[in-house]
Amino acid sequence: MITYPSGFRCGWTACGLKPSGKPDLALVINEGSGVAAGVFTSNRVQAAPVKFTRELVAAGHLDAVVINSGNANACTGEVGMADAREMSETAARALGATRVGVCSTGIIGVPLDMPAVRGGIAAAADNLGEDWEGCARAILTTDTRVKTSSAQGSGYRIGAMAKGAGMIAPGMATMIAIITTDADVDSSGAQKALIAANHTSFNRIDSDGCMSTNDTVLLLASGASGIEPEPGEFAELVERVCADLARQIIADGEGASHDVRIRVSGARDEAGAVEVARAVSRSNLVSCAIAGGDPNWGRILSAAGTVPEERAPFAEEDVDIAINGVTVCRGGIDAGERVDVDMSAREVHIDIDLGAGEAEGIIWTNDLTHGYVTINGEYTT
Amino acid sequence: MITYPSGFRCGWTACGLKPSGKPDLALVINEGSGVAAGVFTSNRVQAAPVKFTRELVAAGHLDAVVINSGNANACTGEVGMADAREMSETAARALGATRVGVCSTGIIGVPLDMPAVRGGIAAAADNLGEDWEGCARAILTTDTRVKTSSAQGSGYRIGAMAKGAGMIAPGMATMIAIITTDADVDSSGAQKALIAANHTSFNRIDSDGCMSTNDTVLLLASGASGIEPEPGEFAELVERVCADLARQIIADGEGASHDVRIRVSGARDEAGAVEVARAVSRSNLVSCAIAGGDPNWGRILSAAGTVPEERAPFAEEDVDIAINGVTVCRGGIDAGERVDVDMSAREVHIDIDLGAGEAEGIIWTNDLTHGYVTINGEYTT
Repeated sequence: MITYPSGFRCGWTACGLKPSGKPDLALVINEGSGVAAGVFTSNRVQAAPVKFTRELVAAGHLDAVVINSGNANACTGEVGMADAREMSETAARALGATRVGVCSTGIIGVPLDMPAVRGGIAAAADNLGEDWEGCARAILTTDTRVKTSSAQGSGYRIGAMAKGAGMIAPGMATMIAIITTDADVDSSGAQKALIAANHTSFNRIDSDGCMSTNDTVLLLASGASGIEPEPGEFAELVERVCADLARQIIADGEGASHDVRIRVSGARDEAGAVEVARAVSRSNLVSCAIAGGDPNWGRILSAAGTVPEERAPFAEEDVDIAINGVTVCRGGIDAGERVDVDMSAREVHIDIDLGAGEAEGIIWTNDLTHGYVTINGEYTT
Repeated sequence: MITYPSGFRCGWTACGLKPSGKPDLALVINEGSGVAAGVFTSNRVQAAPVKFTRELVAAGHLDAVVINSGNANACTGEVGMADAREMSETAARALGATRVGVCSTGIIGVPLDMPAVRGGIAAAADNLGEDWEGCARAILTTDTRVKTSSAQGSGYRIGAMAKGAGMIAPGMATMIAIITTDADVDSSGAQKALIAANHTSFNRIDSDGCMSTNDTVLLLASGASGIEPEPGEFAELVERVCADLARQIIADGEGASHDVRIRVSGARDEAGAVEVARAVSRSNLVSCAIAGGDPNWGRILSAAGTVPEERAPFAEEDVDIAINGVTVCRGGIDAGERVDVDMSAREVHIDIDLGAGEAEGIIWTNDLTHGYVTINGEYTT
């Protein structure tokens, strides 16, 4: 159980958006300074709550956030925009607040059941407290586990929860994370820390290459600790909880049997290293080989070769590849150690040295299993 | 059975490169003018036979081609280059030829069994004839079917064979196609026709987004008909056999249960239309939904939204999507016809109208099934 930052309360309920009857609506209330920052999906097709909340948070303040699971309110046109606005206004009235952000996750293309949402907001607002675990449960979709994290700063705290299990690049299950802190930061400081943290955490996981319409990460600060954090420490702790949540999302990847860390070193620059790692992470052939316990370095090298030369210069004959610490490819050819690779553990480490520079970058991904096909063949619209 | 162009002979054998003992080596001999053209993978990691044959065919002539399956001779370094050269020279000696192209397909990262290859070349050269069906069988890997095509021009013929079933973007199973014609064309005319045909056929299929190290398409002309073809007709017929083979490759996609035609219309330009279609074809979520018989247009629209604005301008609210002729999304929102969609047939048609112009483009792809995961989890290095 998380010891949560002070200056926040939350509530949750099951209002009927999920056919299963599981919890599907949550409220997070900032009772302090209301400072807020946000980062959102770069998909051009953006859900109504993303458009609405992106605009709202641009001014740097949110009094609360209302989150529903079970329906993404995406590809719902004008009706969807009106529904997102009404969710915000309904929650604002119930909480006596002014600026309420909205996050939605679940199926795409179906209008929200607004009577259920209205009832859910009223019920959650009637029962506010500190049950963050329940709150974290109410935002899940195909996730099998609650995802929370926390960090202790010098006189202040950070707490966080997230959901996300598929369409992670990020992606329909959608990634949503809410980070709270009682540090006394202003909105520009919060935004800066969040952008930096997102860059090296949520933007470095890529489960299935599918980018969602709904991805949202919000950082809410109450100032309740009275402590103005040292910016470097604050940024580091925000990054730490984001990286922790990102890692938990990978660990809960739809149908995944392995969590895979792809580290590319020896690159000219970090962007190129990340691009090569991402190309490898998105290869279905590599992902299937990992699921099958096959240290198939040829597929890895072949995937690396799809990155344009100008983005990541390297020569095939300079590339070394190690899997779980065993060098299987040296100088672009077989190193003869393949039989020594043990891929039975959940975590698999692929290390690719391009031999072309000093920079490195990491992407976390999953393998591709029968479970993924089953989940995404049967998850109905 | 194909009525093959005159001026060619072929031979094949099983030389032991495939553990199954199936045919794995073929020779195609041009007994006429020896005109040749080629297009090759754009992957930066290129197999030795690709490097070798690309350079050889640049001069516009090949007397013969030797093709092996079972081993791609990719990621094999200097040894691989020496082996490719030796394959060419061995075949040249056996056939009394000078310029012999080399194609290899199969596993990556393992040196060729050269004693087997030498024996295979000798055996195939000892038994030359016109068994093109046997030849087409000897170049297969994970393919379940022989892929051949032919066309009759005004006084000349075109014949063709191909292999390819996975890693099609194209891709480890690798795509190889050999097209022969008895038309009297020069090498620049052949190269021009081949590039144009490739652009709208093999470059428009994308099964799993994985680009191979070995993809090779060769066009060999013997001139034996004595007919100089009308360039427009010749280009059209070459395009027709390439498109036919491309379609057969999709129909034999690893584990696929559906062949999917994604047509994007209403685009500003053809390149943008193709890019949107390709983004949709590469979405694992879309591919799994099709396997599950789910007309999940939200995933399709979301995948389209990942294409950068400058490459394919469109507004979400102008997009219509039809699946098998039923409009499921109109103006970016649900059209309420989802239950009318029948996806039981092998072929699925997805039509996306971006509402932003007059151009269109088509990509053929497959769905993503348990079979794909099984094949690519178990196909061992």
